Amino acid sequence: MNEHADHLIIHAHLFTMQGEGVGYVADGAVAVAGSRIVAVGPTPELIVRFQATEILDATDCAVLPGLIDAHMHTPWAIARGVAQDVAHWMQKALAPYARYVSPEAALAGTKLNVLEALKAGTTTMVDYTRPVPGWAEFFVQVGVRGRLTPTINALPPGGMAGWRIGDLYPFDEAEGQRAIDEAMAFARAWHGAADGRITVMLGPQAPDMLPREQLLQVKRLAERGGLMIHMHVAQGDREIDQMLKRYGERTPAFLQKLGYLDSQLLAVHLTEATDEEAAMIARSGAGMALCSGSIGIIDGIVPPSYIFRQAGGYVALGSDQAAGNNCNNIFNEMKLTALFNKIKYRNPTIMPAWDVLRMATIEAAHAIGLGDQIGSLEVGKEADLIVVDLTALNLSPVLDTPVRNIVPNLVYAASGHEVRDVMVAGRFLMRNGRLLTADEAAVRVEAQAQAAAVARRVAADPVHREMALMQAMAAGQL
Amino acid sequence: MNEHADHLIIHAHLFTMQGEGVGYVADGAVAVAGSRIVAVGPTPELIVRFQATEILDATDCAVLPGLIDAHMHTPWAIARGVAQDVAHWMQKALAPYARYVSPEAALAGTKLNVLEALKAGTTTMVDYTRPVPGWAEFFVQVGVRGRLTPTINALPPGGMAGWRIGDLYPFDEAEGQRAIDEAMAFARAWHGAADGRITVMLGPQAPDMLPREQLLQVKRLAERGGLMIHMHVAQGDREIDQMLKRYGERTPAFLQKLGYLDSQLLAVHLTEATDEEAAMIARSGAGMALCSGSIGIIDGIVPPSYIFRQAGGYVALGSDQAAGNNCNNIFNEMKLTALFNKIKYRNPTIMPAWDVLRMATIEAAHAIGLGDQIGSLEVGKEADLIVVDLTALNLSPVLDTPVRNIVPNLVYAASGHEVRDVMVAGRFLMRNGRLLTADEAAVRVEAQAQAAAVARRVAADPVHREMALMQAMAAGQL
Repeated sequence: MNEHADHLIIHAHLFTMQGEGVGYVADGAVAVAGSRIVAVGPTPELIVRFQATEILDATDCAVLPGLIDAHMHTPWAIARGVAQDVAHWMQKALAPYARYVSPEAALAGTKLNVLEALKAGTTTMVDYTRPVPGWAEFFVQVGVRGRLTPTINALPPGGMAGWRIGDLYPFDEAEGQRAIDEAMAFARAWHGAADGRITVMLGPQAPDMLPREQLLQVKRLAERGGLMIHMHVAQGDREIDQMLKRYGERTPAFLQKLGYLDSQLLAVHLTEATDEEAAMIARSGAGMALCSGSIGIIDGIVPPSYIFRQAGGYVALGSDQAAGNNCNNIFNEMKLTALFNKIKYRNPTIMPAWDVLRMATIEAAHAIGLGDQIGSLEVGKEADLIVVDLTALNLSPVLDTPVRNIVPNLVYAASGHEVRDVMVAGRFLMRNGRLLTADEAAVRVEAQAQAAAVARRVAADPVHREMALMQAMAAGQL
Repeated sequence: MNEHADHLIIHAHLFTMQGEGVGYVADGAVAVAGSRIVAVGPTPELIVRFQATEILDATDCAVLPGLIDAHMHTPWAIARGVAQDVAHWMQKALAPYARYVSPEAALAGTKLNVLEALKAGTTTMVDYTRPVPGWAEFFVQVGVRGRLTPTINALPPGGMAGWRIGDLYPFDEAEGQRAIDEAMAFARAWHGAADGRITVMLGPQAPDMLPREQLLQVKRLAERGGLMIHMHVAQGDREIDQMLKRYGERTPAFLQKLGYLDSQLLAVHLTEATDEEAAMIARSGAGMALCSGSIGIIDGIVPPSYIFRQAGGYVALGSDQAAGNNCNNIFNEMKLTALFNKIKYRNPTIMPAWDVLRMATIEAAHAIGLGDQIGSLEVGKEADLIVVDLTALNLSPVLDTPVRNIVPNLVYAASGHEVRDVMVAGRFLMRNGRLLTADEAAVRVEAQAQAAAVARRVAADPVHREMALMQAMAAGQL
């Protein structure tokens, strides 16, 4: 009983994610001091080694690294469920809402989304959005790990009036510069804040949404500032069309020549990337954020993450946006990723449970550039972990031999509501399903009020009559 | 205040599923007397019309018909999560468990599975299994609606020792007859029991698993007894291979000539049916049970349900078996069905939320032959309904205009844990998430004990070393 720990979590089915598999430890324990893990091992060993301020009994629970959501647009929770089951979801479903989302509504959406994700075991959130007052502050208040990315594009701030599908985007370079400057100011203010829990990435929205020179400027700023780049890449046929018209090249080749493909890049989606392009990007050292749910709903496409991994790249999972996903839940993304890829390749052995669990934890950590800090439970890493109640009926029974069934059930049967406790940086943010650092009911009520106000503004604008879902409304299908 | 109701549910976002859409009623109410619905309409109307013994306030909740699971194998919850991510899941993963599942273990699995499904809003369970003592009794006790189907096949009861993949199955006609007689005795004992909540279907396991004469015998018995037939059809390339070798025909053509294709048939899976075969079966009036999750996991295949519906057939959703699905949850099946089909056709407008909600309710009711009794909330039908809490963060906010977002969120964002109350035949089986007619903890503990005993027996048999997942165990992936 020589060593001190603030927390000792004992008697867990422990999945450390160390090594090449899931790093299972039977009757496992984790000792935490300050924000970090100081020991991982069998309970009988740790319990004699540590004097702990608090002991948490995780009997009948799985303990694993906190889940990582590598691509979110948290404000869009404010319009959850208004944009799916349609073609051209952006123009025909989401756009009429976008113009009416006030900064207050955006922040209310962020709060709702952060708490939703946290309750489902997500401890690191890579969030891409236009900054509004209070955004980073809420991450600090709640205590989750945030990797925040302010939007950078050079599209006309007043909207794309007069632009028609197929035309080149009209660039507004002043707007692009304003966004770059704003992002850099945000990075100076927040990168490394809250003892390093808050970090900033630079986010050129997509290679077709700002001029080449500004893309290069962002790359230089990222290198100088030691910041990663978080960018949508090959996210739709629309983008490929823009790139071909403007540069005569598809996105991956363009980015390669531009010097964008390296381990500093988190490439989001790759929806339209060919297998060869995906492999090329993977070999560059860039990471991939795979948003199975949203791309399935929006495009009906399974991006080439299997090929990306085969080529040695790291793939992280992302929940994207609630307007058309419609939840932000990494348990959901694990399941969909495994199943979609089995279907894509008509092969049930593709993307087994352990692979997608790694894509939600240690592999995600590498993809987003935090592989030395989070993603596994090992000594010296940040104490980001979740406790999952295996006595939930849908996770029962727990079998250990000859086949241990916990990981398959976490991936294929869990929904996230089985998460009992959540710790980030050594601090409990949820215990027994109850949030400790935010007022869940107040956040929900505020989001409801803001969302209703946005919806009223949309309903008052005649443009809403062109939305694809208005037909479904008229037909009594909603 | 003239009319009496036992229950009046008020202030709901009511989805009656009447008509061609979802039958939404704002501020809706349902009046229930005895086992039946006596009124459906706006709350202000019903509240003055009825004097109710009990009033349930469903403010901020969706109320919809209880969900229907058209194909389950409930005992397999005892081996949840031991058979996925492998090729030849039956032989290489499940079979070693099958031989060690005792009747007590099977019943414990059934209990676990029924409660899991009930908590997730499933009120009608079409269960296919070898009868064990206590099976039907548990359905009666808990109060769910059961459509029970005893297994009928003519395979050697002692196992298929000596049989090799590719050989014709050796039929044991005496075993087939025994199974038919047992099923008929079960039907006489239980069909129509518990005020009609329990009904029986006849279940020839698959067209390749009993001789043609016994298939015909079952069909005659079904017609004479007014029973439906619940059969796996075209469930794998193995079956097609057997049919070609034995009869020189693929399953659908064989069944057509045999006189099996009519509205008396619930055809399960159709995994290997071509689009033409699926359309032919649909036009016969037969229903289809689509098990998106299990077939995705086991085969990496999306069965032709879209074509089946296009041809006018009714499709119901089924959760199949927990050994490789791994949950029995119709919210899960709705989501997977919508997404898998969008991906299959690379078209986000395929299988919209409202379609799959119909496949889980009114369309399922038609497919399983109970369309006049359940599946929608309308006067005269059985009062099977669920109350879903829309204040769950993942279902918030609730928007009504210009696009109502509730149905998309129920399909794409709900996981089933948001189900607050469940009523079957006018009786509440769950209130505020708490089961009223079964001891959840006791069922879980018993299932855990029985499952561990089964697993120990499997581990003691050297045959387990041939299971595909043993490699994953050795590699530290489980």
